[in-house]
Amino acid sequence: MAKKKASRRKLSPVTQRAPMKAKLTPRDKRTLSQLTGLADGVVVAARQRRDPHVDIPARALSNVRYSPRKRIIEMGKRTTRRKLFDLAQAKAFMQTMLVARGVKDLIDQGKSNSIRGLFYTLRGKIADTNEHTFDQQSDCDPIIEDVEVTLASLREEMHLFADPKGAMVGNIVVTDSGDDIDCSRMGSGGYAIPSIVEPDIMQFKQCNARFVLHVEKGTVWQRFNEDKFWRKHNCILTHGGGQPPRGVRRLLHRLHHELKLPVYCLLDNDPWGYYIYSVIKQGSINLAFESTRMAIPDARFLGIRSIDFERCGLSDSVKIDLNDTDRKRARQIASYPWFAHKKPWQREIKKLLDNGFKLEVEALISKDISYVTEEYTPARLKNKDWLD
Amino acid sequence: MAKKKASRRKLSPVTQRAPMKAKLTPRDKRTLSQLTGLADGVVVAARQRRDPHVDIPARALSNVRYSPRKRIIEMGKRTTRRKLFDLAQAKAFMQTMLVARGVKDLIDQGKSNSIRGLFYTLRGKIADTNEHTFDQQSDCDPIIEDVEVTLASLREEMHLFADPKGAMVGNIVVTDSGDDIDCSRMGSGGYAIPSIVEPDIMQFKQCNARFVLHVEKGTVWQRFNEDKFWRKHNCILTHGGGQPPRGVRRLLHRLHHELKLPVYCLLDNDPWGYYIYSVIKQGSINLAFESTRMAIPDARFLGIRSIDFERCGLSDSVKIDLNDTDRKRARQIASYPWFAHKKPWQREIKKLLDNGFKLEVEALISKDISYVTEEYTPARLKNKDWLD
Repeated sequence: MAKKKASRRKLSPVTQRAPMKAKLTPRDKRTLSQLTGLADGVVVAARQRRDPHVDIPARALSNVRYSPRKRIIEMGKRTTRRKLFDLAQAKAFMQTMLVARGVKDLIDQGKSNSIRGLFYTLRGKIADTNEHTFDQQSDCDPIIEDVEVTLASLREEMHLFADPKGAMVGNIVVTDSGDDIDCSRMGSGGYAIPSIVEPDIMQFKQCNARFVLHVEKGTVWQRFNEDKFWRKHNCILTHGGGQPPRGVRRLLHRLHHELKLPVYCLLDNDPWGYYIYSVIKQGSINLAFESTRMAIPDARFLGIRSIDFERCGLSDSVKIDLNDTDRKRARQIASYPWFAHKKPWQREIKKLLDNGFKLEVEALISKDISYVTEEYTPARLKNKDWLD
Repeated sequence: MAKKKASRRKLSPVTQRAPMKAKLTPRDKRTLSQLTGLADGVVVAARQRRDPHVDIPARALSNVRYSPRKRIIEMGKRTTRRKLFDLAQAKAFMQTMLVARGVKDLIDQGKSNSIRGLFYTLRGKIADTNEHTFDQQSDCDPIIEDVEVTLASLREEMHLFADPKGAMVGNIVVTDSGDDIDCSRMGSGGYAIPSIVEPDIMQFKQCNARFVLHVEKGTVWQRFNEDKFWRKHNCILTHGGGQPPRGVRRLLHRLHHELKLPVYCLLDNDPWGYYIYSVIKQGSINLAFESTRMAIPDARFLGIRSIDFERCGLSDSVKIDLNDTDRKRARQIASYPWFAHKKPWQREIKKLLDNGFKLEVEALISKDISYVTEEYTPARLKNKDWLD
């Protein structure tokens, strides 16, 4: 009997320590009560001698749809039942409970962790076997996503952070973990956007800015910051180091919805730039359940556009030939339901394909070092010349 | 004749506009005088009817050596002559002059650019031919490096920035482009370390910190920042998002040499972690000419170490098997001249190979979420237990 008890502890290493009790925020209390609800369901079923199970919203493409009314990608109502007493599902069931347990510990302790750190914490040999709870990170990640959608909690609410990327400057003061950060006094480096920007960690203290300009790359962001674009145009300037990480998307979402700031995106004229815009605007297909708190349907695509080669009088030397993957991706994106019925977007993508080349934002710099900050972008804003 | 003039303008698009005159810093004046010297050499040769040439320090591995006295990798004295009137070298000669010209324009204008932006600015058709000045970015990058070593200027002094990565918090106030940034009041996000941290852009205004802790990854940095490690231990906490970019290395170098702060590195226990340490400490082999202003020979490797699996009582579940590439890289690194004669390093790498597995810093988190911040790192510092 003693051996069995020891084994049980081994199965779930996170239970070994008594978690320190931290001060809980309202968000934490909500997430905890959802976690407890999940566990209670299992306990009640066991007591009533019914098979324990969890119903997990299906994260399949077939359960994702675009809502033309809300203008976001959202999940359907289909769920998948995961049962303990099913040989094919028992391991996933155990893993789901482990992740829920790990997240509960984090909230109890008032700490956060990376998904890598959580994986290590939960990984262990299952007693009397050679089986690991999780073999590798890629076994753990989908279970984390399962728990997210089951609890209807963002990963950030589960105290899980991602690798931070992206920076912000501009006419806004944010309070981050109690520190007031004046983003108009952040020099050339800027404020590094953290991975978790939920309201209990970050509050908007003061904001005079009239809009947000989001650029794709850090190098372009530096050009705009050096020319103090945000000061001249009274805005906030962000970048996400390419495809923006969750923290940056969530921050843009909050700036847009809470402070009512329009969000303009300055991205490359290629399928990747279109895709970044699509994710900012409608949400990502893989993580459709987050759209309501991540997507910004009113985000605008400021450029650069397929017509810019001629419109801006660029030289042939800035052209980069489209390859087959580019062409295929461009056609896919043109058929996305949120682009399919928009004539300006169809024209934009057709023109890209007709051009046969793509353009990076840096191409505008070939005209003049400050052309993009002093002429191109101000002209687009002044003429309300963007794609929706 | 008129046609010829137009052609000549086309060859060198950067000459088309009259550069705005910016206020020059002492560093700018020095770089400009070196650029002028480079051009003068060509002009004088032409006037005296000698063949114009530039002598470029050879960036070949055979011209790189480790100086045991200075404890950095440095370039030898060998140079390669690049001539205008040599069919094999004429294009590279022209490209060298174009890059020098582009850099001069940036300094004259008081602006900076990415290497991508410079490439676009300099790219163009050579008149009456189908030849481009540069075909692709990879043609331009080595020429930029040639100009760097010829002028003995860092890329940053040539107003060229890289993609920014990495963040800083801790007990230091820096002045960045005129803004005072108190890194002890930077919340969970931190100050985004800019790409150019030269003294005319960034000054150290006030510093109470006793040392710098540099960690490899942003996720580990967040763990340390959340636990306010830098406050408890009165230090500065930085990360470089993996292999630290030039801005982070240069900042660490300045913190170490100007403020006399010891630099401790907390990296993964694998060949990649060793390599990151090696570059921080001795400089990189590819860019040996920067070592005097980038390398920190006294940087210390705090961990994590091959003995930590046993010393810290980690569970089998944190092991990641070494693959063939890991083993090969580990042996290469063991034979680096700066590790070859150090017994502790030979033991460290031998133990890694004997273990047959590697460990990530996150493995320590499997013991307890704050084990690495509250026990492991403080113990290493207290016992002066590191590798040199």
